[in-house]
Formats: sequence, C-alpha cells, structure tokens
Amino acid sequence: MDSTLFTATVLANWETAINRATVFFDKCSDADLLKPIAPGKNRVIYLLGHLTAVSDRMLPLLGLGERHWAHLDELFLTKPDDVSAAVPSFGELRGQWKEVNRELTEKLRAWKPEEWLMKHESVSAEDFAKEPHRNRLNVVLSRTGHVSYHHGQMALVKV
Amino acid sequence: MDSTLFTATVLANWETAINRATVFFDKCSDADLLKPIAPGKNRVIYLLGHLTAVSDRMLPLLGLGERHWAHLDELFLTKPDDVSAAVPSFGELRGQWKEVNRELTEKLRAWKPEEWLMKHESVSAEDFAKEPHRNRLNVVLSRTGHVSYHHGQMALVKV
Repeated sequence: MDSTLFTATVLANWETAINRATVFFDKCSDADLLKPIAPGKNRVIYLLGHLTAVSDRMLPLLGLGERHWAHLDELFLTKPDDVSAAVPSFGELRGQWKEVNRELTEKLRAWKPEEWLMKHESVSAEDFAKEPHRNRLNVVLSRTGHVSYHHGQMALVKV
Repeated sequence: MDSTLFTATVLANWETAINRATVFFDKCSDADLLKPIAPGKNRVIYLLGHLTAVSDRMLPLLGLGERHWAHLDELFLTKPDDVSAAVPSFGELRGQWKEVNRELTEKLRAWKPEEWLMKHESVSAEDFAKEPHRNRLNVVLSRTGHVSYHHGQMALVKV
C-alpha cells in the first residue's frame, strides 16, 4: 500500500474540516460571534475558544511540543459558556485559532507514515501494547470529527 | 508501516461516529423525532432519513453494490425538510439506518489496505490518475465527518 497517500488523504480531510470552520469564523462579524447557536445554547465565540483550546492541547498530546494558551481551558473547555464572563479579545482569539492550526498542520505534514501510528502521550506504553489503535492517527481523526460536530452547530447561525 | 492498523483505526473512527448517532436515535421517542434541532430548522426525523440516504448512496459510490432505497433521496436529500410531507414509518427508517450501516461496515471491514486507496465510482480513471486522493478512504473520512456534523446539531435537542 502507498502509505504516503494514506496519510496525505487523512491530512487533507483534517485540513478541509479546519478550513471550513475558518471560513465560517471569517464570515462572522464580532456581533455574530456573540450569537448563540440555538436559544440558550453556546455562543459562536465559545465554540471558537473551545476549538482553539482543543487544537492547542493536541500539540503536547501528539508529542509536537508545548501548548500555548492553557488559560483558554477554564473559559472554553472546563466551564460551560457564561455570557457574564469576560472573554479575551475577539481579534486575539481569531488569530490564535489560525496560528495553532497552521502549526499543527505543518507538523503533521512532516510525519512519516509510521509516526502516525505511534502512541499518543496520554496512553501508557503498557496500555498501548495492548491497544495499538490508541495512536496519533486516532487522535487526529477524532479531533477532525470534533471540529465537524461543532461546525454543524455553528452552521445553524445566520451570519 | 502496519497498513492493517491504519485501516483498522479509520474503521474504528467510522464505527464510533455511526454508533454515537445510533445511540441518539435510539434514545429518541417517535415524538422526539418530530422535534426541530433549532427553531425553524430540520427535524430529527429529517436527519435520520438524510443520514440513511447518504449511507445508502455509499454502497455504489464505494463499489460495494446497489443501493436499497433510492426513494429516500427526494424526501431527505434533494428537498429541504417539509413538515407537511408524508414521511415513511419511523420504525422502518430506524431499521434502515441500522441495516445499511451494518452492511457498509461489514464490507469495509473486508477490504485489504490497498482497496481503501482505489478510486471511488464517481471519479473517472483519467481524473483519478491526476488526483489519487479521490479514493475510497477519502469518501469514508468525509462521510464520517458528515455524520458528526449532523450529530452536533441533533445533540441540541432535549430528548
């Protein structure tokens, strides 16, 4: 099998999901970012921060280096959306979303096929020996699905 | 590279997306299926029919055989949700969703790694020679993302 074509196809799928979400965020005015995806549900700004935090956490999880903005987790990951909480500057968040995905994608592109099947950093060597599907490819696939999951929600917002 | 582990990881990701959506549909009463995902948006029943039609279309697209229920397309794919249109029996649709995904998954599981990289049926041999990423793997990955996209929407419905 052409392993390089296999990983290139997976990578293209990741990039498509990220690019579609980016196109949506770019289309949003700052006022649009404050709209909820449905009455009483998360605002678009929360999902922008949430997806940025999750991409940021992929760096250490995939052994690609330190993450950049751990402070995003409290606002956008561990706590639900809170309309009364202060949020970072919209421009800064928009930039971080693009920056972290550019870095991630560049580093994924440099992996050799066998590096995709190495263990990720939150599984022990012992467990990985028994469960070899808990690999980096699995992380990238599930995070790609996570972006699509929230993109489906954002697409309900008229911008 | 262990090609079999690569395809097994992709397949597990497909199955996870399908299973999560199935758990959601199973949790829905028939009355829940009639709820819209957000005010004025698609009902859950539309997404059940839509995802079933898309899985059904994957059979010929992936060279795995004829599709079963072409009549679903008009109700759930080519036309938007129409609350005044008659829909097939809910029980029948629920069954078709499970049946087509069981068939698809079983057939995907039988593929050798190189079969994942063969062209799908809606790209010409000539175009495929130039664009080898237009392969079956790409179809499975994008359809997995499509299920996640709509699952994110359904998850907004209280059932």
